Amino acid sequence: MTSGGDAPGMNAAIRSVVRTCAYYSTECVGIYRGYQGMIEGDFVTMTARSVNNIIQKGGTILKSARSKEFMTAEGRKKACDNLKEHDIDGLVVIGGDGSFTGGVVFNKEHNFPVIGIPGTIDNDIFGTSHTLGYDTALNTAMDAIDKIRDTASSHNRLFFVEVMGRDAGFIALNTGVGAGAEEILIPEEDLGLDRMLESLKKSRRSGKSSSIVVVAEGDKSGRNVYQLAEYVEENMPEYEVRVSVLGHMQRGGSPTCFDRVLASRLGVKAVELLIDGKSNLMVGLKNDKVSTTDLEKAIKGQCEIDMELLRVSDIMTT
Amino acid sequence: MTSGGDAPGMNAAIRSVVRTCAYYSTECVGIYRGYQGMIEGDFVTMTARSVNNIIQKGGTILKSARSKEFMTAEGRKKACDNLKEHDIDGLVVIGGDGSFTGGVVFNKEHNFPVIGIPGTIDNDIFGTSHTLGYDTALNTAMDAIDKIRDTASSHNRLFFVEVMGRDAGFIALNTGVGAGAEEILIPEEDLGLDRMLESLKKSRRSGKSSSIVVVAEGDKSGRNVYQLAEYVEENMPEYEVRVSVLGHMQRGGSPTCFDRVLASRLGVKAVELLIDGKSNLMVGLKNDKVSTTDLEKAIKGQCEIDMELLRVSDIMTT
Amino acid sequence: MTSGGDAPGMNAAIRSVVRTCAYYSTECVGIYRGYQGMIEGDFVTMTARSVNNIIQKGGTILKSARSKEFMTAEGRKKACDNLKEHDIDGLVVIGGDGSFTGGVVFNKEHNFPVIGIPGTIDNDIFGTSHTLGYDTALNTAMDAIDKIRDTASSHNRLFFVEVMGRDAGFIALNTGVGAGAEEILIPEEDLGLDRMLESLKKSRRSGKSSSIVVVAEGDKSGRNVYQLAEYVEENMPEYEVRVSVLGHMQRGGSPTCFDRVLASRLGVKAVELLIDGKSNLMVGLKNDKVSTTDLEKAIKGQCEIDMELLRVSDIMTT
Amino acid sequence: MTSGGDAPGMNAAIRSVVRTCAYYSTECVGIYRGYQGMIEGDFVTMTARSVNNIIQKGGTILKSARSKEFMTAEGRKKACDNLKEHDIDGLVVIGGDGSFTGGVVFNKEHNFPVIGIPGTIDNDIFGTSHTLGYDTALNTAMDAIDKIRDTASSHNRLFFVEVMGRDAGFIALNTGVGAGAEEILIPEEDLGLDRMLESLKKSRRSGKSSSIVVVAEGDKSGRNVYQLAEYVEENMPEYEVRVSVLGHMQRGGSPTCFDRVLASRLGVKAVELLIDGKSNLMVGLKNDKVSTTDLEKAIKGQCEIDMELLRVSDIMTT
Repeated sequence: MTSGGDAPGMNAAIRSVVRTCAYYSTECVGIYRGYQGMIEGDFVTMTARSVNNIIQKGGTILKSARSKEFMTAEGRKKACDNLKEHDIDGLVVIGGDGSFTGGVVFNKEHNFPVIGIPGTIDNDIFGTSHTLGYDTALNTAMDAIDKIRDTASSHNRLFFVEVMGRDAGFIALNTGVGAGAEEILIPEEDLGLDRMLESLKKSRRSGKSSSIVVVAEGDKSGRNVYQLAEYVEENMPEYEVRVSVLGHMQRGGSPTCFDRVLASRLGVKAVELLIDGKSNLMVGLKNDKVSTTDLEKAIKGQCEIDMELLRVSDIMTT
Repeated sequence: MTSGGDAPGMNAAIRSVVRTCAYYSTECVGIYRGYQGMIEGDFVTMTARSVNNIIQKGGTILKSARSKEFMTAEGRKKACDNLKEHDIDGLVVIGGDGSFTGGVVFNKEHNFPVIGIPGTIDNDIFGTSHTLGYDTALNTAMDAIDKIRDTASSHNRLFFVEVMGRDAGFIALNTGVGAGAEEILIPEEDLGLDRMLESLKKSRRSGKSSSIVVVAEGDKSGRNVYQLAEYVEENMPEYEVRVSVLGHMQRGGSPTCFDRVLASRLGVKAVELLIDGKSNLMVGLKNDKVSTTDLEKAIKGQCEIDMELLRVSDIMTT
Repeated sequence: MTSGGDAPGMNAAIRSVVRTCAYYSTECVGIYRGYQGMIEGDFVTMTARSVNNIIQKGGTILKSARSKEFMTAEGRKKACDNLKEHDIDGLVVIGGDGSFTGGVVFNKEHNFPVIGIPGTIDNDIFGTSHTLGYDTALNTAMDAIDKIRDTASSHNRLFFVEVMGRDAGFIALNTGVGAGAEEILIPEEDLGLDRMLESLKKSRRSGKSSSIVVVAEGDKSGRNVYQLAEYVEENMPEYEVRVSVLGHMQRGGSPTCFDRVLASRLGVKAVELLIDGKSNLMVGLKNDKVSTTDLEKAIKGQCEIDMELLRVSDIMTT
Repeated sequence: MTSGGDAPGMNAAIRSVVRTCAYYSTECVGIYRGYQGMIEGDFVTMTARSVNNIIQKGGTILKSARSKEFMTAEGRKKACDNLKEHDIDGLVVIGGDGSFTGGVVFNKEHNFPVIGIPGTIDNDIFGTSHTLGYDTALNTAMDAIDKIRDTASSHNRLFFVEVMGRDAGFIALNTGVGAGAEEILIPEEDLGLDRMLESLKKSRRSGKSSSIVVVAEGDKSGRNVYQLAEYVEENMPEYEVRVSVLGHMQRGGSPTCFDRVLASRLGVKAVELLIDGKSNLMVGLKNDKVSTTDLEKAIKGQCEIDMELLRVSDIMTT
């Protein structure tokens, strides 16, 4: 099942799980709409052929949802009953933090084997260098910023572009470096408005007539992107300031090669772990190799932003 | 020169004008930043080689700007003096309504030959079936809506997507049909909020669990896209409603084949008209052929939305 | 049904035909694999919901095939019997020349109503300015040539790029102009090898260090793209010459906005014509309006390449 | 300087080297056309502003070339004299194996500091998990195969698609898994034609009516892609077989976010190493961290294909 916010590559992961089951002659059942569908018994039998031609599709054919009912012991009991009724012996959850938390609780209560596959564009899960959908989202956001750059530089404008990432600056930092942004504001770092202003002024003095500032949703400045824009407009009247919020398009689109390959690899491992009688693990990528992390650690661990990349970003905007 | 809002294909048009001049052994001078650069004498000599490798670039290498000074007779006098000083005998203006209005006034006062090339993503210029940049903007906006569709259908959500088009619904209508939107709201038509609600309810009853409503910036309902979303959320609590404003990315990007070919054709015609001693004309496309329109008519004429396409849109959302 | 070579936009046309039938409360049946499926009775009932989410897909969900059996009277008899057995009263054929010829013969023999929708990337059908898939193929081919340009100009190389178009130079001419090719070779025009050589030498003298020559499959020089490359390499040893045949990728991909909108419009018209009791017509686009052409004329008529665009191409490569 | 085959991301690396020099107040000189330009003294002074707006461009603004003259001691002497004449104290070579070999020899003879940045789409360099351009090439090739899939599945065809990789199967293996190919043929593995045939027959029996076989240029079967196609056609007459050679388009295009960020990181490190007095090192990525490898080891070391991914590929085509 897929759960929580959707991400490109979820379909590729579903395909991989289904095909690996077929390879090991194990029956595979898809659960629609995450934990909610588990409670409602919204199940479908899946064969190698039912996942034909979905590897390139964004979104998730199993749909996703949030479930309040699953937060109750009663809901989880119902869900467990449904699984047993269908002779299901193990669960692969494709999702993020919240979905894994549900899985851990479910496993504790019902001793039901659970393996997690990290699927979220935010890349904010401990125990894997990359989550499914992250690489695709980076390219989607960067392509959009490239387009904004075209119009910014035709008009000598300053653009504030908000990208996704409520608690994590991964998307902002990487798309900012990739799109050649003049400034990048992320939740992990609070440089203060004055430093930003100083940097924009320096950039202008150095001959740049247009600028892009990439801002993560959850930036620490305590102001949202519109307020930031207003602040700069007041203090740098020589600039025409514009705001663009990229929004939900970052969640969709056909996955990149990286995300499709990663999904294929993680799906194989997830099924093999269940077959081997393992549980409470998340599969992920460490040092370019498929590896596993304790599911609880994956939830509690702190992902850290790469300080070296922050430094690279500073040097690039010289 | 390019003037007003930038649009993909402007560089292709600059290239065409420059190369056509070279073909006819006529000197060509580029003017930076539109009328403002004309006043400031911000000129550059251009040869066939100076436009190498720009046909595929978004934005405009000559930059664009709005000029308050050109709205004064004094500013225009200064501009005219600059042109004469550089032995310039004719002017090609690549831009929209406002830029053409400037050109007409300038021509009247100083009897200076002016030819217009319609460059704006909004397609709101009379006398041409297509403006430069419109086809590219359609595809950019539609691709973004395709991505939003991925996430909408994974979550059973209703999305309000705002596309550009302050006074004209061309982009909304075409991207709406192209992206298979369930509802399209354009300035040319006021269906009323009730009809929209009715249509969304019908779509839901028919089994659709997610929906996209495409809204033009200048929609007639008198409410902006956020207010529309709120209204629906209140009246259809079964939907999770989200808003996405596509914004300035619609102005950028590498032009489509159509826009590059159109730019090449219009640039040739514009120069040939000047060489033939013509003035006060806009070049454009009518019935797939390059043709000319009186520049004043182009400004005053009313572009009409295609009623047949509105009907097609209704049928598609059955 | 879809028939002959597939083209992007065919799914959008299927969707439009199905939805228009639903709109008019008319039953709609899809036929798999063109005339061959018609003979084999490979039919499927289609409702408005069965075409959800296909507008953006390349290829054709109804598949396509060529049928030798349909070239016999016996085969056509069988096909007609199948249609009648399923209470089918009219046929919409989405395809090209060959498919329409089959439709005309079928109509003559069995007096069965047939409407054609032009679907082919080659744009070689009389009676419509654009066929479905053509605009998409132009952009696919042009994007590929843009990429080849990157490597060509990094290495001072000359590339011969073959694009599709066995009998028609539409793709070559438009992508050549759009990608800024130095030379374009099309079936409609035989300039001779000497002129090409002269032109490449001139381009080199003018300071260009890399060049792209776009060649239509069916070029009149009587030599294929590899032979052309060899000829130039022998006569211009200063160039490193490379060949790239773009091939079948030009047939696939998500359709452009233009192709999706066109498909939607033509599908509506096709069904409305059948409902009105019309037959033996092709729907198409003339002067930006949906219009109809006698199906036999569509087959026999000669599409002519736009001489003005050839001239534009010459001027652009000054 | 950039040298050898060009790759997307080379411009991003040039930009990074130039900006890092500016950051450390070090003068930076660009060398055109690799070692050949070094011999001819084809140099240009570069400042932070001269690399504006190139991060997103394919190819290399410094151009690339192969140089026979640099293979002679005389040529290298001339090159060294030119560097000294321009007060150049260290060299950053962006390229592949051959370029690094030249660098090592040059360093030995003239004791001139050299740092290598791995830039090649083939990913065949020891000491880095990723070379510049590889991620972009994967996505370019995969997108093309996705398009071919559209037409293959519309027609029940079998396609042989040749991707780049003369000595290494990285591109074939990853794009094959990413595009969901039914079979992948790479130089590192010789499965024999019989196994391929068996696998295709199995795929057909399992209900698949179309198939994609991805073949690396340097496949071990000793037959080229056309011969493979012929062989299958003879042995499986039920299939229509087609061949597509993706060719040079795989070398071009705007770099992905990954390649742009990698280029930015490696460029910083390369300059910092030179400033620190280091030489004969290649910068690269190991375990997601920037690291260094002895330049000679980078040349001689053997890159190994990921056997786990081969296994994943087998399972996916169940």
